[in-house]
Amino acid sequence: MPATTWSRHHILSLADFTTTEYDTVLQTAASFREVLSRRTKKVPTLQGQVVANLFFEPSTRTRSSFEIAAKRLSADTLNFASATSSITKGETILDTAKTYLAMGTDIMVIRHQQAGVPHAIAQEMDRLGVKVSVLNAGDGQHEHPSQGLLDLFTICTLLEPNAPRLELLKGKKIAIVGDILHSRVARSNIWSLTATDAELHLAAPPTLLPKLFAGCGQDRPGKLFIHWNLEPALEDADFVMTLRLQKERMTAHLLPSLREYHHLFGITRSKLQLCKSHVKVLHPGPVNRGVEISSDLMDDPEFSLIQNQVTSGVAVRMALLYLIGSGKIT
Amino acid sequence: MPATTWSRHHILSLADFTTTEYDTVLQTAASFREVLSRRTKKVPTLQGQVVANLFFEPSTRTRSSFEIAAKRLSADTLNFASATSSITKGETILDTAKTYLAMGTDIMVIRHQQAGVPHAIAQEMDRLGVKVSVLNAGDGQHEHPSQGLLDLFTICTLLEPNAPRLELLKGKKIAIVGDILHSRVARSNIWSLTATDAELHLAAPPTLLPKLFAGCGQDRPGKLFIHWNLEPALEDADFVMTLRLQKERMTAHLLPSLREYHHLFGITRSKLQLCKSHVKVLHPGPVNRGVEISSDLMDDPEFSLIQNQVTSGVAVRMALLYLIGSGKIT
Amino acid sequence: MPATTWSRHHILSLADFTTTEYDTVLQTAASFREVLSRRTKKVPTLQGQVVANLFFEPSTRTRSSFEIAAKRLSADTLNFASATSSITKGETILDTAKTYLAMGTDIMVIRHQQAGVPHAIAQEMDRLGVKVSVLNAGDGQHEHPSQGLLDLFTICTLLEPNAPRLELLKGKKIAIVGDILHSRVARSNIWSLTATDAELHLAAPPTLLPKLFAGCGQDRPGKLFIHWNLEPALEDADFVMTLRLQKERMTAHLLPSLREYHHLFGITRSKLQLCKSHVKVLHPGPVNRGVEISSDLMDDPEFSLIQNQVTSGVAVRMALLYLIGSGKIT
Repeated sequence: MPATTWSRHHILSLADFTTTEYDTVLQTAASFREVLSRRTKKVPTLQGQVVANLFFEPSTRTRSSFEIAAKRLSADTLNFASATSSITKGETILDTAKTYLAMGTDIMVIRHQQAGVPHAIAQEMDRLGVKVSVLNAGDGQHEHPSQGLLDLFTICTLLEPNAPRLELLKGKKIAIVGDILHSRVARSNIWSLTATDAELHLAAPPTLLPKLFAGCGQDRPGKLFIHWNLEPALEDADFVMTLRLQKERMTAHLLPSLREYHHLFGITRSKLQLCKSHVKVLHPGPVNRGVEISSDLMDDPEFSLIQNQVTSGVAVRMALLYLIGSGKIT
Repeated sequence: MPATTWSRHHILSLADFTTTEYDTVLQTAASFREVLSRRTKKVPTLQGQVVANLFFEPSTRTRSSFEIAAKRLSADTLNFASATSSITKGETILDTAKTYLAMGTDIMVIRHQQAGVPHAIAQEMDRLGVKVSVLNAGDGQHEHPSQGLLDLFTICTLLEPNAPRLELLKGKKIAIVGDILHSRVARSNIWSLTATDAELHLAAPPTLLPKLFAGCGQDRPGKLFIHWNLEPALEDADFVMTLRLQKERMTAHLLPSLREYHHLFGITRSKLQLCKSHVKVLHPGPVNRGVEISSDLMDDPEFSLIQNQVTSGVAVRMALLYLIGSGKIT
Repeated sequence: MPATTWSRHHILSLADFTTTEYDTVLQTAASFREVLSRRTKKVPTLQGQVVANLFFEPSTRTRSSFEIAAKRLSADTLNFASATSSITKGETILDTAKTYLAMGTDIMVIRHQQAGVPHAIAQEMDRLGVKVSVLNAGDGQHEHPSQGLLDLFTICTLLEPNAPRLELLKGKKIAIVGDILHSRVARSNIWSLTATDAELHLAAPPTLLPKLFAGCGQDRPGKLFIHWNLEPALEDADFVMTLRLQKERMTAHLLPSLREYHHLFGITRSKLQLCKSHVKVLHPGPVNRGVEISSDLMDDPEFSLIQNQVTSGVAVRMALLYLIGSGKIT
């Protein structure tokens, strides 16, 4: 592991991440990716510690990724199934969290359908003066910081496998395409990617990309651009990140039809011809094939980084658990 | 661990617990609480043994507590989700238990919505002459012995942290307030607390505390008292245990309204003025804030032992798993 | 463990298992059964490897058996609950499997309500050139190879506990009785048992045993016999395997009534008098007592091997995970 001066106790948002913090996460994840290539993929780092996955909103994919990451670090893991939990018995979320604290949980990985829940729990833990760490695994439409970091790690390790760092993105053009309005993934990526010297272009129909998003980059001028059509975002892009289109958006009359959406904003091999020839495509998953991305493109290893993202996810989550977990050794 | 002559194979009820057994559990739990304060909170006691949490009635809180306890002892744990189980396929509960026995389960932790199920399973295991142990994690409205023991441990360690034992309760007055009729927690606590030289006072509206409860203490005269109003129970009390009021009781016409209930039997800071000045409040959780206990009182560390109870739960469950698990070494 | 030249990478079906493969599984399982009789029932074989139980169709019993087997081998296990999975979000099954691959899964244990899913996933993994192994834990009405192997192991170890092997079945008569049409267990057992020198007799009402089953044994003449009444199948049988009757068959008008079915095809003590005196009864579980088998017979250790089957299941699944897992050491 790299020598580190990590001091952040909770991972709640990327809004105030520093360049040093991004680089520490990237380097630590690179070390763990090396561990994952061994036959015995475990390290004893968090032995005897308890990582509780408190998923008030169910998610097999993200929960499994955190569970594998925790087990690779030799932590004990606890899974919380919201359907069978005390919250159906009228207990408040803070009381549920305090119960897991009192049982001896060291790190709480929290997903909730409402924005702000992980922050509220972290605040309460700090108020109580306890050492437990909170990691936001997705809160409402707010943030999903570990996803933002794994996307960053995927891009940076492609550029330089053994020394991923923010400065590698200097001069790159990155497009995020799709349902940005409802996406916590997009929000976390906007923070991380505007922290680099890359150009970030957002593209979506106006119903899924309100004007106010232009304001996100106000303090970082010349870095964030908004488009209501796809072409200017793709032109000469180095990376294209397409987002899952939740079919529920259709019934909310935000879109005419899936076919129309795919025609205008779906990423296909032919549309990629606008991009740089070495362009790569990312998607946070799960994918609706043939909607936000064409099925053949998703499976093409020349273009698709989608599987790399999943693998990066385990290494980045190991890094995050390690950084906030080992902060407690003192 | 204390030298012990533990011989009980199953933990099903506190009805016939001896003073020596209570004291052994208290002392063993105290040893484990010390383990839990270390950075590496694991001991190899049950390595290679399988603890199956068979929760026919779902409970995240109690299941997590047993799961952490088992993992701290290095056991392998199995969770059984009743919703997806073979019981929906017409298999009998005894057959389900025998299946887990045949798979090599060493300890079965059983919760069921019907009273008597853990006893029936334990009887069947004994009839088969096998060494598996059964631990009742709550059966219907009957008993919840590990909750009774953790409440006792919480009280005794408050009185003397390093040497918790029954005799510390001599001359103490303890009140249990609330829905005693439907509470397996109350039943287990009635057994444990009348085994001490404490005075135990029960208080609830008559619909939730039928006269027959007075008979519980018949063989232990001068120890158990029944009240249909709160004040005489609280007067000079050292400990007040308030119980969860299940909102379903309302629809069953057992109570006029939650507000009325809170007014008459909810524990508040002002009502505690009837008690001894050092009075402490317990609650088995999950709590309906503002119903059985006022929200501010629950959070006041001067009065509330609620978080201590959760922490005690892990230590007491480690002790119980250790005592019945290590009984099989011979 | 026996020296082995195992080369099969996935366990999908018993249709093309060789005699050598059957015997290797039987001998390896016998070694692991010895491990299971120790107090510390773990071996470090799969330490650091991830076994993902991807149960698209829920099954507590089979999932628990695989989970115990994997934990006994010191693997990390991941459970996938279909109800909360991404497949409800429109992701394809192959994409779900590839996600678990990218997270670092070493062995996927897959159950699905549709025949062929484990094969399709295994094919995709091979196409991708990755080393992950797929184990079919039951696919639709197609196959359930680990059940077929554990039934074989149960029978062979009864005949010679320390050296189970196919040739022990020479000259034995085995009957499979019940809903063969819908049973993946029956299909796997037909493959394994016709690979021996035993006589295999199938018995069921014509609605549950179409004529086409006679064709299953065409390439193995004189080994497979079809009966639409029970008596000729039971006559002089050494082993009787009765199958679970799913009550849904009733509503599909395939059977007149459960009582009628039990009268004609239910296995009872008196019907067993047609068999050899040392006859043993098997059932894959979960059992409908009083339907496919009488309740007293199921519990009679003189006749019933049902508990042995469950115990064999853990040993056989350890053997399978070991054989396909250790194939990757190179």
